Amino acid sequence: MTSLTTPLSDAPAPDLDARMVLPEPLTLQSGEVLSSVTVAYQTYGTLNADKSNVIVACHALTGDQYVCGVHPLTGKRGWWDDLVGPGKVIDTNRYFIVCANVLGGCMGSTGPKEINPATGRPWGLRFPVITIRDMVAAQVKLLDHLGIEKVLCVIGGSMGAMQALEWAHRYPNRVFAVAPIAGSYRHSAQNIAFHEVGRQAIMADPDWAHGNYLEENKVPKRGLAVARMAAHITYLSETALHRKFGRRLQDRASLTYGFDADFQVESYLRHQGYTFVDRFDANSYLYITRAMDYFDLASENSGVLSNAFKGSPVRFCLISFTSDWLFPTSESRAIVHALNAVAANVSFVEIESDKGHDAFLLDEPDFHQTLRGFIDGCADVYGVPRAIKTGAP
Amino acid sequence: MTSLTTPLSDAPAPDLDARMVLPEPLTLQSGEVLSSVTVAYQTYGTLNADKSNVIVACHALTGDQYVCGVHPLTGKRGWWDDLVGPGKVIDTNRYFIVCANVLGGCMGSTGPKEINPATGRPWGLRFPVITIRDMVAAQVKLLDHLGIEKVLCVIGGSMGAMQALEWAHRYPNRVFAVAPIAGSYRHSAQNIAFHEVGRQAIMADPDWAHGNYLEENKVPKRGLAVARMAAHITYLSETALHRKFGRRLQDRASLTYGFDADFQVESYLRHQGYTFVDRFDANSYLYITRAMDYFDLASENSGVLSNAFKGSPVRFCLISFTSDWLFPTSESRAIVHALNAVAANVSFVEIESDKGHDAFLLDEPDFHQTLRGFIDGCADVYGVPRAIKTGAP
Repeated sequence: MTSLTTPLSDAPAPDLDARMVLPEPLTLQSGEVLSSVTVAYQTYGTLNADKSNVIVACHALTGDQYVCGVHPLTGKRGWWDDLVGPGKVIDTNRYFIVCANVLGGCMGSTGPKEINPATGRPWGLRFPVITIRDMVAAQVKLLDHLGIEKVLCVIGGSMGAMQALEWAHRYPNRVFAVAPIAGSYRHSAQNIAFHEVGRQAIMADPDWAHGNYLEENKVPKRGLAVARMAAHITYLSETALHRKFGRRLQDRASLTYGFDADFQVESYLRHQGYTFVDRFDANSYLYITRAMDYFDLASENSGVLSNAFKGSPVRFCLISFTSDWLFPTSESRAIVHALNAVAANVSFVEIESDKGHDAFLLDEPDFHQTLRGFIDGCADVYGVPRAIKTGAP
Repeated sequence: MTSLTTPLSDAPAPDLDARMVLPEPLTLQSGEVLSSVTVAYQTYGTLNADKSNVIVACHALTGDQYVCGVHPLTGKRGWWDDLVGPGKVIDTNRYFIVCANVLGGCMGSTGPKEINPATGRPWGLRFPVITIRDMVAAQVKLLDHLGIEKVLCVIGGSMGAMQALEWAHRYPNRVFAVAPIAGSYRHSAQNIAFHEVGRQAIMADPDWAHGNYLEENKVPKRGLAVARMAAHITYLSETALHRKFGRRLQDRASLTYGFDADFQVESYLRHQGYTFVDRFDANSYLYITRAMDYFDLASENSGVLSNAFKGSPVRFCLISFTSDWLFPTSESRAIVHALNAVAANVSFVEIESDKGHDAFLLDEPDFHQTLRGFIDGCADVYGVPRAIKTGAP
């Protein structure tokens, strides 16, 4: 892949057409069978000769495969452009990064907005409910397709952390290390509740048309925007919101005594809501939030989380952020306790940050240093050659 | 008022028709003038001869004047039935409790669902934006009407706490003591954000009809239900949600792989949302949330909160709850610091509770004991005779 310098990033430009179709049907956790599954993905860096330098990055709820460089749809930087690129925390001069759009997503992988081959019409709500396990199963098939037997490290934040844990649980011999960041082994009641509000907001929009909006040429913009607004609050800490906006007014000297966006925080939220609908599919939002709600590695293992990792050879690095109230440190700590109980190889760092859950996407030097240390250390042990080029090309 | 024993409470049955019309127009904080203002209210207990036993209870966002006994509309217990009644924390054998439906509300006081006398049609969005100051001004007029010059204590939780602070700030000579519970002196950016989500959900509902739903015989049920669901999450702590529901399933043995309410917490939230719409008006929700957002006693006083209480003779009792993340202890503490800075008479108690913001409505013995101690202590100093009857009649 050619390195292109862009105004936003020195990472290689993404290949818009990287897709593979699974050679076989995929049996889902629900028991349903998806007969034709496409996985859209991106790669960054170069696969080395012994295929030892593979890092799988797993995206979060509203992320996608465009990890770094310029996003082809939004024109903005990829979600981890701060971290992934030549000479960066995850150095594309040394590592080969693979990121797939999740099953159920809306950026090219099979999901509710794609065409159901059996009917020739969009899946809509006829798409089967998928789980984190199904998402990871599709990623494993992608690696089979790429001829990669074992992955150096699986990394992800939030829902990406769930996927990293699922990798370690189900494919312990295909992954050397995992770094679940700002995540959990099961979605909490409060998080299910927030997701339910988002789903209800979408389904309350008449333009959702019982899930058939694509066929009816509608877009449930208002419902999806409200869902995004509610979720967005949970991604930030109270401190971050206060620092960013406080009670400052939006382009006005005093209160207007009306329902316009008087406060900057209102204007910001509306913007977040209404730009989101241009890049995301409402039904995908339903399916992916549901997958997160269903995730529970403890209940799948007789209620004992440590059972999920008994005898695991995988190296774990758990990272949480002090001000993250969506996936608080206590969740990561519970995973660490379970791993300790089975004498797994685990390190755990809680990063001091006031940026809330979103900290895993932001410029947090301590976080970056921790992640870099873990990945590079694992790579050295695993025998990945050091990068010849260092820094930007 | 006659004492009736009901299955739910031994408090006097509310008089459904307690209303007064202000003798004069009310000039609002915005500068607009409301020419005909009705205040719907309830009283509990008996006003004593020297009118020294008056307690004003201020209700929260979705509360109303039916403090205790059976609510005439919902058939459920009033919001403070645990606390107010004969022999209870706020003893109706000793005190005379007055509670008014707030201006902008929907339980009889003038608000957007009432008829605009100038047009003969419901106010809708033509109703002027009101503030906490306006709500309290209407309450003061009610007390004038009742011939009550000075109040023993003004008490309220959440938005009720804002009103209690406003009373102390603007009418320091008409109130002996105030107890603002689980409140703040200004609405935080995060709280404005949550309110904005609720408003956007309501306004996104086509049945809201740009605020004219009453005239068009519609009810924006879906939007208002989503607003309530989002808000309801903020009233509980993560711990309370976990204890109440965890990840338990709703009347089923296993996941259904669908979008029905698989989890109890989903079912509960939907219930909260869809019962709320039967008792609350969507436009009132817009106006009252706006009033809370606008509240900022610091900015009204040159940015210095303590200026609001300089030389105040009022006795203050601030109460917060450890697990309240909507109005956390830090907010109450900021008020205490401001009061200390002007040598006001202030006590402050943080109650250990895992019930979140809603704790102020619930059976919390330490909270009740604190409140009882403060009120009875103030009453003794103020010279209110002890109750002759104690306990239930």
